[in-house]
Amino acid sequence: MNENEELERQFEFLRHLLQEDKMNEFREMFLDWHIYEQGQFYSSLDEQERHRLYTYLSPKEMADMFDTIEEDHQDMKDYLSEMSPRYVADMLNEMYTDNAVDLLNQLDKSEVTRYLSLMKSEDVRKIKQLLGYEDKTAGSIMATEYVSIVANQTVRSALTLLRKKAQEAEIIYYVYVVSEANCLVGVISLRDLIVNDDDTLISDMKEERIISVNVADDQEDVAKTIRDYDFLAVPVVDDHDRLLGIITVDDIIDVIDDEAASDYSGLAGVNVEAIAETPMKASLKRLPWLITLLFLGMSTATLISHYESLITEASILAVFISLITGTAGNAGTQSLAVAVRRLAISDDKDEKFFKLILGEIMTGLITGCVTGLVIFLVVGFWKHNFILGFVIGVAMLCAITVANLAGSFIPMLMEKLGFDPAVASGPFITTLSDLTSVLIYFNIAQLFMGFFIGT
Amino acid sequence: MNENEELERQFEFLRHLLQEDKMNEFREMFLDWHIYEQGQFYSSLDEQERHRLYTYLSPKEMADMFDTIEEDHQDMKDYLSEMSPRYVADMLNEMYTDNAVDLLNQLDKSEVTRYLSLMKSEDVRKIKQLLGYEDKTAGSIMATEYVSIVANQTVRSALTLLRKKAQEAEIIYYVYVVSEANCLVGVISLRDLIVNDDDTLISDMKEERIISVNVADDQEDVAKTIRDYDFLAVPVVDDHDRLLGIITVDDIIDVIDDEAASDYSGLAGVNVEAIAETPMKASLKRLPWLITLLFLGMSTATLISHYESLITEASILAVFISLITGTAGNAGTQSLAVAVRRLAISDDKDEKFFKLILGEIMTGLITGCVTGLVIFLVVGFWKHNFILGFVIGVAMLCAITVANLAGSFIPMLMEKLGFDPAVASGPFITTLSDLTSVLIYFNIAQLFMGFFIGT
Repeated sequence: MNENEELERQFEFLRHLLQEDKMNEFREMFLDWHIYEQGQFYSSLDEQERHRLYTYLSPKEMADMFDTIEEDHQDMKDYLSEMSPRYVADMLNEMYTDNAVDLLNQLDKSEVTRYLSLMKSEDVRKIKQLLGYEDKTAGSIMATEYVSIVANQTVRSALTLLRKKAQEAEIIYYVYVVSEANCLVGVISLRDLIVNDDDTLISDMKEERIISVNVADDQEDVAKTIRDYDFLAVPVVDDHDRLLGIITVDDIIDVIDDEAASDYSGLAGVNVEAIAETPMKASLKRLPWLITLLFLGMSTATLISHYESLITEASILAVFISLITGTAGNAGTQSLAVAVRRLAISDDKDEKFFKLILGEIMTGLITGCVTGLVIFLVVGFWKHNFILGFVIGVAMLCAITVANLAGSFIPMLMEKLGFDPAVASGPFITTLSDLTSVLIYFNIAQLFMGFFIGT
Repeated sequence: MNENEELERQFEFLRHLLQEDKMNEFREMFLDWHIYEQGQFYSSLDEQERHRLYTYLSPKEMADMFDTIEEDHQDMKDYLSEMSPRYVADMLNEMYTDNAVDLLNQLDKSEVTRYLSLMKSEDVRKIKQLLGYEDKTAGSIMATEYVSIVANQTVRSALTLLRKKAQEAEIIYYVYVVSEANCLVGVISLRDLIVNDDDTLISDMKEERIISVNVADDQEDVAKTIRDYDFLAVPVVDDHDRLLGIITVDDIIDVIDDEAASDYSGLAGVNVEAIAETPMKASLKRLPWLITLLFLGMSTATLISHYESLITEASILAVFISLITGTAGNAGTQSLAVAVRRLAISDDKDEKFFKLILGEIMTGLITGCVTGLVIFLVVGFWKHNFILGFVIGVAMLCAITVANLAGSFIPMLMEKLGFDPAVASGPFITTLSDLTSVLIYFNIAQLFMGFFIGT
C-alpha cells in the first residue's frame, strides 16, 4: 500500500510537470521509471495530457512504453488516433513484432493498411506474416526478435553477436543454433556461454535435444511446454523445423491468465475480464445470458405446468422441486468444472473420453445413492411419509447421475466439435439439469402417486 | 501428439534397459534428457523400478530431477521412504532451498527432523528459516540461491562471480547489488553486464529504482509484480531492505495456476486439482459439499412447505418456483464471479468495497427490470394472466437484486474476515439465493392472491 501511495504521489508530481510544460524535468524523471509504470501513468492521463506527453517522447520511447500496455486495453484505438500516422508507423517499427501485431489486431482493416503503408518494407513483411497466423496459435503470439547463430562459431563470436543484438532482441538468454537453411539444430543458454571458455566451439556445447513448438500449435500447449520445462522462452518452428520466432515466458503468463479467466467466466456465465465498468455496461453484458437462460428455464416451467394436476392433488410435491433441481445442478456443476479442467491439462484427449464419462457416471451413481438415502430418511421422518421419501430419493439419484453425465459429456462434445469446452457454461448445465430433474421427478412421482397420497 | 509418442517409445526403451540392469547405457540416455522428462519417467515407474533407478543416480542427479516434480505430487512421501535417509538428506542438500522446503512441507514432523539431523548445519539453518515463513507468502516460495555483489566492483568481477555461481544459482540473469549490511541497493541484469565494458563500475550502471517484494507479502501480490513488470525474478527483502532471497518466474506460474484453480474450484464447489482419481475417491470429495448444500436446500423446502396451502389454492405458483430461483441463482453466480475476480486483481480493496456493492445492486436492478419485464410479458400472454405475470416479474426483479447483493457482499465479507473469498462458492450463493427468492416470491404472491385467482 505504502509503495502504491508513493507511486501515486509521483504520478501527481509528474502530471504537474506535464501541465507546467516542463519537458526536460519531466523526461528526466519519467524515463527513469520502469516502462510498466510509464504505461500505467500514460493510461491515467486525459486526452490533452496524453497529447503533450506524445510531443515529449520519441517513437522509440513511446514504443517501449506501449510494449507494456495490455493490447486489449479498451482505449488503445483512441491512443493511436491521437498521434500522427507517421509517428504511429515509426512506433510500430520500434515495437517488438508480437506486440505490434497484437496492437494492429485491435484496429480496423483500413487503419492497419494506412499504418503499414508508412512502415519499412522489411518490417511490413514480418508483420503481415504474423498477422496471417490464426488467433490463439503459437504463431499469433511469437516474437521474431531472437538471436541465432550457426554451429561452426565459437563462444566468443556468440557473445559478440549477443552484445550487438542485446538492444533489439526480446530475450537474450538463449541463443538458437541454426543450419544454413535456418533449421533449428540446437539451443545454448547464456548461462552456458558465460561458463564455457571463449574458444569453445558452439557445435561442441549445444544441447542436442531441442524442445520446440510448431507455429500452428495451440497457445495452451505452448504454455504447458514452458510451464513444465521451466523455460524462459521456447523456439517456434514450421513443419520443416525452420526457426520462425520465439515465445517468451511473459507472454505465456498472459496466456495462462486469459485461459483461466475464460474457464472461470464460462462457469459463471459472465465475462469477468471486463472490470471497472458502469452498471449499465455490466448489465448489457450479463443480460444476453440471463435472458437466454430465462427462456431455457421457461421450458422447465412448461414441463412443470404439464404436471399441474399432479401438484393440485399433492401440493407436497411442489415443496421438493427446487431441492431436487438445485442438488442436481450442484452435482452437474462439479462434473463440469472437473471435465473442463481435465480437458485443459490433458495431453491425450481421445483416450480419456469414455474413461472420464464413465467415471463421472459412476461418481454420479455413488453420490446419488448417498444423497438419495439421506433425503429419503430426512423426508421420511420429517413428513412421516417414507413412500414420498422414496420417490424423492430415487428422483435425486437419477437426477444427479444424469447431471453428472451432462456435466462431463457436453464440454467433451464441445471440445470434439472444436469449440472451447468452457462455452458449455455452468448456468447452461444447471438449466439443462433442471429440465431433466423435473422430468425424472414427476415421472417417478406419477408412478407412485397411488401409494403416497393419503398415507 | 507425434512427439508424445516418440517420448513414450523412449520411455519404453529406457524401462527395458532398467529391467535388464544395463546401468551405463541407461545413464547415458537418461541423463541426456531434460530433467522434466526425467521426472515424468520416474513418476511412471513402479516401486521396484524406482528402486533400481535410485541405485543408479547420485543424490545430485536425483535432486535435479526432483526439482521438477510438483511438490504436491501425491506419491512424494512414498518416493522418499524408498530411499535411505542419508541419501535423502544429501539430495535435499543439493536441491534448491525453495523446492527442498516445499518437499519437506509434505512430510510428517518426525521425518523432517530425521532428515534435517543428517544435513549440513548451514543448509539446515537456511531451510529452517524458510520453513518458518507462513504459507502463501513471498518467504514461503523464495529461493536463497541468488547472486549478489557489492557496488564498488567492476563488470569483470561481476562476470567472474557469475561464472563461479552459475552452477548453483537458480537464476543468473540478475545480479543484486547489496551494501555491506546486505541491504539491496540495486539490480543489474546479465544483459547489462554483457553489453557494458569490462571495466565499468557496478555503481555506475546499477538500476537505482529497485522493485522488490517484502518477505511477508502475499504470493498473489508477488505474482502481480512479476506479471506487470515482465520480470524473470524479483528480489525478496525484509522490513530493513535486507536481501533474503529471490522468487523466479517459474514459481510464479505455479502460483498463478494454483490461484486460478482455487477460484475455479470455489465457483463449482469441488476441488478440480485432484484428477485421475477413482469414482469412489471423487465421490468422497464431492459428497461433503453436496450434503451440506442439501441441508441448506432443505431450508428452502421447509419454507415452501409453509406456503403449501397457497400452492393448493393456486398450483400455477409451483410452476414458476424453479424459474425464479434458477434465474436469481444465475445472476448471483455472475455477481460472485465478478466480485471474486476483482478482489483477486485489485490493489486497493477498502476503497472499492462500497463502490462494488453499489454497482452490483444497480446492475441487479437493471438486469432485474429487463428480465422481470420479459417474464411479465411471456407469462401474461402464455397464461392469459397479466396479474400472475406481474407477480412473477416483480418477484424476479427483487430476487435478482438480492442475489446480486449476496453474490458481491459475501465474498467481500469473506475477504474482510481474512478468508479466501473463493470459499463463498457458487453453489453456496445459489442455494442462499434460492431461499430468498422463494421468500420474496411467495410473499408477493400472497399479497396479490385475491387478484389473480379466478382471473
